This record gives sequence, C-alpha cells and structure tokens, in this order.
Amino acid sequence: MNCSQNEAIKIDEELFSEYGFSVDQLMELAGLSVATAIAKSYRTVNGDNRPTVLICCGPGNNGGDGLVAARHLKLFGFRPTIFYPKAGTSQLFKNLVNQCNRFDIQFIADLPQDNRLLIDSYSLIVDAIFGFSYKPPVRPQFAQILTKIAEAGATGVPIISVDIPSGWDVEEGPPTDDTPLIVADCLVSLTAPKKCAKHFNGRYHWLGGRFIPPVLAQQYGLNLPEYPATEQCVLLDTKH
Amino acid sequence: MNCSQNEAIKIDEELFSEYGFSVDQLMELAGLSVATAIAKSYRTVNGDNRPTVLICCGPGNNGGDGLVAARHLKLFGFRPTIFYPKAGTSQLFKNLVNQCNRFDIQFIADLPQDNRLLIDSYSLIVDAIFGFSYKPPVRPQFAQILTKIAEAGATGVPIISVDIPSGWDVEEGPPTDDTPLIVADCLVSLTAPKKCAKHFNGRYHWLGGRFIPPVLAQQYGLNLPEYPATEQCVLLDTKH
Repeated sequence: MNCSQNEAIKIDEELFSEYGFSVDQLMELAGLSVATAIAKSYRTVNGDNRPTVLICCGPGNNGGDGLVAARHLKLFGFRPTIFYPKAGTSQLFKNLVNQCNRFDIQFIADLPQDNRLLIDSYSLIVDAIFGFSYKPPVRPQFAQILTKIAEAGATGVPIISVDIPSGWDVEEGPPTDDTPLIVADCLVSLTAPKKCAKHFNGRYHWLGGRFIPPVLAQQYGLNLPEYPATEQCVLLDTKH
Repeated sequence: MNCSQNEAIKIDEELFSEYGFSVDQLMELAGLSVATAIAKSYRTVNGDNRPTVLICCGPGNNGGDGLVAARHLKLFGFRPTIFYPKAGTSQLFKNLVNQCNRFDIQFIADLPQDNRLLIDSYSLIVDAIFGFSYKPPVRPQFAQILTKIAEAGATGVPIISVDIPSGWDVEEGPPTDDTPLIVADCLVSLTAPKKCAKHFNGRYHWLGGRFIPPVLAQQYGLNLPEYPATEQCVLLDTKH
C-alpha cells in the first residue's frame, strides 16, 4: 500500500492533468480530512474540549493543507493559531490566508524564543511543513523550527504530522544526519501512506484525502483500505 | 434561520469577494455534504446497499453541486448516473464532468420517453436543477424534466432536492401556476435553509455546506444549528 516518492509525485500530477481536479478542490478535501482526523483523535486534551492547536505551515502544498485544516478545526470548536514563516505566493495561498483571517484565526510571526512558552501555550502542534516532495537537506530556517517542534514533542505535546513527519526522508524514514527528529503522535497520510510511514510508531495513523479515482488506485496498485461509510479519514493499524 | 433569496445571493457573493473562497472550494464542500446527507438517509433502499441514483443537474451552480455529489456518492458505494441536459460552459463545469467520466459515472443524454423505465431504473433521484437564484417561470425544456421527476416522485421514488425543490419559489414555496410540483422526500439546504423550506414536508431535512465564517453568520442573523463533531451535515427538525 505504501507508495514511493516518485509514485506520489506522479499520482499528484495525474490528478490535475488527467482527471481535471483543481488544487483548490483537492486541498480542501485533504485539509478537511486532516482536521477531521485531529478532531477524532484529540476531542479533549487534558479535560479541555476546545484544545488550542498551533499549525506550522510550510511554503508548499503541505502548508496549504495546514491552512485549510486550521479553518475546519475552528469550525469544529478548536482554537487554532497559525505559524506560516514563508508564505506561498500564489493566489490560492493568499486566499487561504485571507479565509483564516476572516475566521479570526491568529497568525504568529515567530515561534517563542523560550520554548517553554510554546509548550505551555498549545495543547497540540500540527506539522504541515514538508510533504511528499521533500528532499533533504532541510534549510537552516526550517531546521530551527523543526528543533523547536521536536523539543515540544519530546516534552509531551502531541505532534500531528501531515502526510510525512517533516525532515523525514519520504521513503527511508527518520533522518540519519543532524536534521532534528520529529516524533509524531499522529500521522495523517494523504491519498496513500508513503514508504516512510512504516517507521511511524505514534498512537494514531490516519489515511485521508478520499478522492482517488478507483482506476487510478488500481493503476498504481495502491490497495487502499476501505473508508467507513461517509467518513473522510480512516484509522490504520499501527502494529507493523 | 431561514433566509431570503436576496440574503442568499449576498452571502454567496461575499463568500467569494470578501472571504476569498473559490467556487471550486465551496462547491466541493457543498457537494460533499449533499452526498453525505444522501448516504446517511438512504444507506439501503429496498434491501440494496449499493442504490442506483439518478442525479439531474441544471446549468448553474446547483447542477455543479450535483456533479460533485455524484463523485462522492460513487466513493460511498452508490451507483450514480448523471443527467446533465444543459451543461455549464465554464472550465470548472468541464472539469467536474471530466472527473465524473474518470470515475466511470455514466451520463445519459435524455430521460427515458417511457417514465416507467425511469422509475424502474433508479432507486433515488437527485434534483440538482435549480438553486437559490431561481426565478420563475421555468423554461419549457426544464418543465418537461420536472414533470418526469415529479411523476417518479409520486410513484414512490424518493426525490432529494439540493437547496430548494426545483420549480419552487425560493421564498414562497410550491409553485402556484402550472409548473410541475416536485415533492421532495429529502431536502439538503446549503449554508442556510431558504424561506421556502418551511413548506417542506418530506422525511429528511438536512443542512449542509459547513463553511460559513462565524462573523458572516452573525452579520446575517443566520442562527445556524450546531453541526455534530466533524459532520458535514446536520439533520434538522421537520416538525414545524
């Protein structure tokens, strides 16, 4: 079921070129499934049923999924805040930011210098920094960010990674160089788990992005699990 | 809670102009909520858990919602067929048609001459012909279509209307002239019920289109019901 980086890139391209999907459409469904998976995993955190959540968004489509997820999380009763250090420049990204602004979702310009503040302020952290097209090495700006997220995770703040834990090799898994190690509590794979997901040992592994045409799934031998009824995400078995 | 035709038109305009949504985004969420409401209402029909459903799509955005719903219904295990007699000409509509084709959803060019065939072939009929911007009178081409759908409904095929039952006045309700009367078994109101929904007496009244920014809802005094958890539609009370 797990697909390679090349397959993920090709599937993504085909969805737009052959199937005529727009990025808007699929990002909306992907982000919705991420928000849904988070709300199902963390309905209450430490007795709080309106958990605060920091959504860290990268410059590409993974970050876009995070922006969409933030908006739906707000509708689901969560209290999202966004950190978007290197905003995408296309009109779509500008629109997604505008939508979040109009939903009264706060953007923070920097992560707190003192990481204690980060850890105390947010019940959950979403890692929507890098996705299936990521290739190491990570740039210094993002290495710093990953360090802080990894640290927060190590102190017990659940990290939810979108598609892949950022900094991980899409196929090989956790970094073997000095890239900070993100240990996610929850992974939301999109369209199909990537090869690196085999190394995921957190509590929740969801599959989201329920929009793959059956013929495309067949063509790539994806052998996707069945989604229950009308659900936009499905919980996968984490026992390997 | 029920809104006027003018309010519905203004809310729609603001979502695009002020909030920076694209039609692609909101149509995807609207269509998904329609498909979800249908799957929740008619999981099995006459013992068949893969019901056939004919989706009749009009030339505007209501028809677009129907095209999106068809695709999601297919993913939910239904067997959709589309009747799209006057296809929208924008690229978005062309893309939605292409997507349905690639999902192996059949399009029929005409409704059967003998209405018995229509009634025997489909367990459910979706009326996605006219939406909140409809103004009478109905054009002859569509009057014929409404007659056939109304007839099928009268023999017991459940009709699911998207946003408004087609041919109804958005505010006043059922037509008072010779427009064929659609009696829907299920109504999926989108963003907010329209005034005519007060006259709906079918079994299921859902609200879908869960994307209204809280400030916009407040501004228009929409007083929307709470959606349960991560659900994309909510069942409304039909007892007036």
